[in-house]
Amino acid sequence: MILEIAQVDIKPGQEAEFEAGVAKAAQYFKRAKGCKSMSLQRSVEHPSRYRLFLTWETVENHTKDFYGSADWQEWRKLVAHTFDGSPSAEHLHETFKGF
Amino acid sequence: MILEIAQVDIKPGQEAEFEAGVAKAAQYFKRAKGCKSMSLQRSVEHPSRYRLFLTWETVENHTKDFYGSADWQEWRKLVAHTFDGSPSAEHLHETFKGF
Repeated sequence: MILEIAQVDIKPGQEAEFEAGVAKAAQYFKRAKGCKSMSLQRSVEHPSRYRLFLTWETVENHTKDFYGSADWQEWRKLVAHTFDGSPSAEHLHETFKGF
Repeated sequence: MILEIAQVDIKPGQEAEFEAGVAKAAQYFKRAKGCKSMSLQRSVEHPSRYRLFLTWETVENHTKDFYGSADWQEWRKLVAHTFDGSPSAEHLHETFKGF
């Protein structure tokens, strides 16, 4: 299982618009091949910064199957106008579970 | 509930040493006040980059109760020599759970 963290800064004042767009977009991620969970995390120290957490069965489910798809375009239509700069995405895999 | 993400780059070749140190340190986090879970995530794109995920009841459980404590010092003794630069930590709270 792969965890994608997509980090994005939102234009100040557009946070509620962004959060509403993420909620509307959940349907696109839910039906995306290999997408297993989705949550949105907001930074305490930088309240206009968010991290979208998505788990995928494989990296390619994100980078090949979802990225650039019609549903990806719908997702971007909902939120891209609220971005302050470009989002960055990174993929991680768990190497240790403490408790 | 607060998610702390501590991001750290490890000196190339020291990854196994770092991972072993994290496993040994789990005991310190497990008994830390308010610490509810711990896992280690490794970057796919940058394999010397890790993110330690810790959930805390409050930000202060990390920044006031744990940071600088005797157990924090033991934790740093186990892993600090493997750090390539300074770690950065940020706290997040979930604002939306899609699925």
